[in-house]
Amino acid sequence: MTGRAETLRVGVIGTGAMGASHVTTLATSVPGAEVTALHDVDAPRADRLAAEVGAASVPSASELIESDRVDAVVVASPDATHELLVLECLAARKPVLCEKPLALGVDGSQRIVDAEVVLGRRLVQVGFMRRYDSAYRALREAVLGGDLGTPRAVHCVHRNAHAQPGATSDSVIMGSMVHELDIVPWLVDDPLTGITVVAALSAGDAFADLQVAVLETASGLVATVEVFVNAEYGYDIGCEVVGTAGTARLTAPYGLARRRNGVDGRGVAADFVERFVGAYAWHGVTDYVDGSSPDGRPRSW
Amino acid sequence: MTGRAETLRVGVIGTGAMGASHVTTLATSVPGAEVTALHDVDAPRADRLAAEVGAASVPSASELIESDRVDAVVVASPDATHELLVLECLAARKPVLCEKPLALGVDGSQRIVDAEVVLGRRLVQVGFMRRYDSAYRALREAVLGGDLGTPRAVHCVHRNAHAQPGATSDSVIMGSMVHELDIVPWLVDDPLTGITVVAALSAGDAFADLQVAVLETASGLVATVEVFVNAEYGYDIGCEVVGTAGTARLTAPYGLARRRNGVDGRGVAADFVERFVGAYAWHGVTDYVDGSSPDGRPRSW
Amino acid sequence: MTGRAETLRVGVIGTGAMGASHVTTLATSVPGAEVTALHDVDAPRADRLAAEVGAASVPSASELIESDRVDAVVVASPDATHELLVLECLAARKPVLCEKPLALGVDGSQRIVDAEVVLGRRLVQVGFMRRYDSAYRALREAVLGGDLGTPRAVHCVHRNAHAQPGATSDSVIMGSMVHELDIVPWLVDDPLTGITVVAALSAGDAFADLQVAVLETASGLVATVEVFVNAEYGYDIGCEVVGTAGTARLTAPYGLARRRNGVDGRGVAADFVERFVGAYAWHGVTDYVDGSSPDGRPRSW
Amino acid sequence: MTGRAETLRVGVIGTGAMGASHVTTLATSVPGAEVTALHDVDAPRADRLAAEVGAASVPSASELIESDRVDAVVVASPDATHELLVLECLAARKPVLCEKPLALGVDGSQRIVDAEVVLGRRLVQVGFMRRYDSAYRALREAVLGGDLGTPRAVHCVHRNAHAQPGATSDSVIMGSMVHELDIVPWLVDDPLTGITVVAALSAGDAFADLQVAVLETASGLVATVEVFVNAEYGYDIGCEVVGTAGTARLTAPYGLARRRNGVDGRGVAADFVERFVGAYAWHGVTDYVDGSSPDGRPRSW
Repeated sequence: MTGRAETLRVGVIGTGAMGASHVTTLATSVPGAEVTALHDVDAPRADRLAAEVGAASVPSASELIESDRVDAVVVASPDATHELLVLECLAARKPVLCEKPLALGVDGSQRIVDAEVVLGRRLVQVGFMRRYDSAYRALREAVLGGDLGTPRAVHCVHRNAHAQPGATSDSVIMGSMVHELDIVPWLVDDPLTGITVVAALSAGDAFADLQVAVLETASGLVATVEVFVNAEYGYDIGCEVVGTAGTARLTAPYGLARRRNGVDGRGVAADFVERFVGAYAWHGVTDYVDGSSPDGRPRSW
Repeated sequence: MTGRAETLRVGVIGTGAMGASHVTTLATSVPGAEVTALHDVDAPRADRLAAEVGAASVPSASELIESDRVDAVVVASPDATHELLVLECLAARKPVLCEKPLALGVDGSQRIVDAEVVLGRRLVQVGFMRRYDSAYRALREAVLGGDLGTPRAVHCVHRNAHAQPGATSDSVIMGSMVHELDIVPWLVDDPLTGITVVAALSAGDAFADLQVAVLETASGLVATVEVFVNAEYGYDIGCEVVGTAGTARLTAPYGLARRRNGVDGRGVAADFVERFVGAYAWHGVTDYVDGSSPDGRPRSW
Repeated sequence: MTGRAETLRVGVIGTGAMGASHVTTLATSVPGAEVTALHDVDAPRADRLAAEVGAASVPSASELIESDRVDAVVVASPDATHELLVLECLAARKPVLCEKPLALGVDGSQRIVDAEVVLGRRLVQVGFMRRYDSAYRALREAVLGGDLGTPRAVHCVHRNAHAQPGATSDSVIMGSMVHELDIVPWLVDDPLTGITVVAALSAGDAFADLQVAVLETASGLVATVEVFVNAEYGYDIGCEVVGTAGTARLTAPYGLARRRNGVDGRGVAADFVERFVGAYAWHGVTDYVDGSSPDGRPRSW
Repeated sequence: MTGRAETLRVGVIGTGAMGASHVTTLATSVPGAEVTALHDVDAPRADRLAAEVGAASVPSASELIESDRVDAVVVASPDATHELLVLECLAARKPVLCEKPLALGVDGSQRIVDAEVVLGRRLVQVGFMRRYDSAYRALREAVLGGDLGTPRAVHCVHRNAHAQPGATSDSVIMGSMVHELDIVPWLVDDPLTGITVVAALSAGDAFADLQVAVLETASGLVATVEVFVNAEYGYDIGCEVVGTAGTARLTAPYGLARRRNGVDGRGVAADFVERFVGAYAWHGVTDYVDGSSPDGRPRSW
């Protein structure tokens, strides 16, 4: 048991849905964290939110990053700005949590990795919050602890109720399937070596809103992934790891079951906020300061 | 409500594990059926079983097929004999239920189909018993009845506790995955158009005991299949159909749950006999006589 | 494995809902049984049903019981006739399955028991079909096999969607709770010694449609029972046995689960026919002939 | 969304298992709370814990209660001291959370209620933490929101793996069943009017470690309660509310399911800490300061 660490002062860039959610979580649910500065190109929106949490609204992102009152930064601004802002944080030697994507392409991501390597210190986390979900963590412990024998296969399901406006066949992979590409190698501690994607596409479909992938890893494990962004019935995340000695799978954190009108049912989450609320609030100050997660895998949260 | 149909007299060729199981089921659990003749190259084995159920032990398969006391035939002899025996049944114009495989290859299967077409009457069923499992049938009704909207994806899992002696990478597909290749198009009433198989194979593995396949159908639906023949923990069959309006999946027919030693658990079946006992007993005399199953898909049971 | 026993010729008295259901089950699903005679005071109704199954419609119950073409009798006529008809069956030394109640009161039931004792042979079964339900049987095996240690408590739930017309506070006990009074001592092999009933009764209720009972057994075990005959959402039967080493409980035989409209749900049965269809068809000829059930507890089925 | 409230300085009396757990929770998981003072008759134990969390170790309980550095008090000392310490907190007009029991008997509890009434302000909470459990809260919302129609019955199960040393037939009620006596009227917003307790007691039992109760409420609802303090298999809390339009029940917050050795299983909690960890950390500063819980039921937490 330890007492509370000193307060970490966080600046948040971007106050849209994700940014505002980070501000609320940090201000009310993360012991040891304090939101001291906000920036948004929509200054009035940043001003309002800043007033609510007692933070300063700062006129530019660079000023926020360099501020003496900011120990760590959250980047939740539009995708195109991520790479530059993260590089600025590295230059200022401040820990940064960047919402996905880290950059717009492979080259940009590589530039960030290179900068961090030069710095010799890990400061960047990407917003893969599942690693902080208690169920995913229990699943990983079961796998790495040997409970399932040798892992041989993984099955992932990722369903959103409704596609976001402007969704494309590409964004299904970049915005949704990317979570599975992060979590599978993390769960089995085994890097990906190959991926095959098959779109379920009928004549007349505007884009491939349901896609299936087969992933292969270095050790010979195979994973299947379904991503369906128009599942309609709700937000649903499934994961099963199959080993030589048994299997383990996520079960939804239902809490309550009802029997009504001939159905014995449980509620499905409406969206990722409802499903992963605990994961967003989980990590404490230590994770920010040293850029590490408790499992010794520092690059993401 | 209808009264009992006249008795159907069945002859069974092959009295090994599957053949003996058919004899028992027919003799004790299928109203309207009677086992009148048995044949096995191991004559003493056939004699013993015949004595138990009051049937005749017949010295040759051909004699059994042509016997006046046999209205319909079950072929459960070694694989290599199937094609010829089924063709003999067709020649005798008797309904025949043949255990899989129907023949040793594509050519043999085609010869049987051609013979049946010439005959102008469907008399051949293959032992795909899942179509008679109440859960699979309920799943199919949910799909074809429109409950799930348009079906978009299917996920199948097929696990045996232990590979059979002599199992090979090929037999995993021919003996096990073949059930999924039968059931997926049946469930969604949509023919297969493509299949990609990926083996989960590590250095040192004797054969690919875990294989994953991606199936594609004419309408653009995609299915994933996992077959794992050394799952160790038990025999486990899973199937989920994903539609635009919702999903439906098989749930194991557990019946009983226990809480012991820190676990809230339910028993997994040991093998396919335990899991599908109801499916084997399901069909009645009508199915044999007119070679049709109740859903109007006559070729299999 | 055994061959089929000789045919048992059954006569059915009463062709209302329960009687007609017995006729159908016997005619189509019970290997070795044949319905040869029917009687109903509504003669045209009996005639129609008899024609369907190839049985004779007999003008009186006594004639049916004494008929040379009837080996065993099912009594499904109005409650007030049960005692006399069962006594007639005993006089004719024919096995009889009587729907509950066996008689209208304690005295009538005792007269039947006395007659059977004088006869020196058990011929009477009462329609407690749960003892033939596979899940209840598995539960009993778990208990008596010692899997749960010493049984200490039982919890029963019995819900009907809608009360039958004319239901009273008494009929809730006599018609519904009676199943629990039969099944609890059977499950734990321990006779009841006491019962306390508490009605959940609000001002304005026409009768006590929800009643709770606490049962006590000879060994000191305690059982709770809820009977609710207006549960509205469906027909629902629950049973949990709590032992020193663990618990076991019935799970509904769902087969299929669906996710739709924000709910992950499974269907609840509409009525007892749907829930216990297997139990009605379970028993074979042997049970009728020697009046015994396979577990050596002969008086009920 | 609101910013963080000012820090509340909490003093904790008693640093045994429960007291130390409160200290840890307050120090690390309750935003806005700070532990500033500890007291225990085992001074070295209090000193060690105080050093860990940066609090003062205070030589007497009275001194802690009256300290200028203490805004609110947690009483987790031996049961016999509760009444007096709570009265002292009231005299000092400081909010107090007292572990159960509030006093050793009815008279003592009444004296505290009287004192609070005189004070005209609610300052006392008792440690009924279930009211802060997310599943119980969802269940209450379902009931009071009308989802189940009119509530008619409640079924509660409360199982501990092992009785505490020195447990008696009385302590099963006072220490364990008391949670059900608190939660049932809270869930259905309907006061208890009667209770009947039946012990499952066999010859040779040292005390009644399994007891069943039937509760009745003012509106005519009936509840059953099983408390079993030697359940061996784990800590298990169940609750189902039965209404005219349906039922709702707690489901265990499993998170993970495994299939191993023929069992499809989920882990049962080992003890109440594991099961209710979220409930202990749930409430924030506001609850302490104004003695109210968010649902407007101020006396307990």
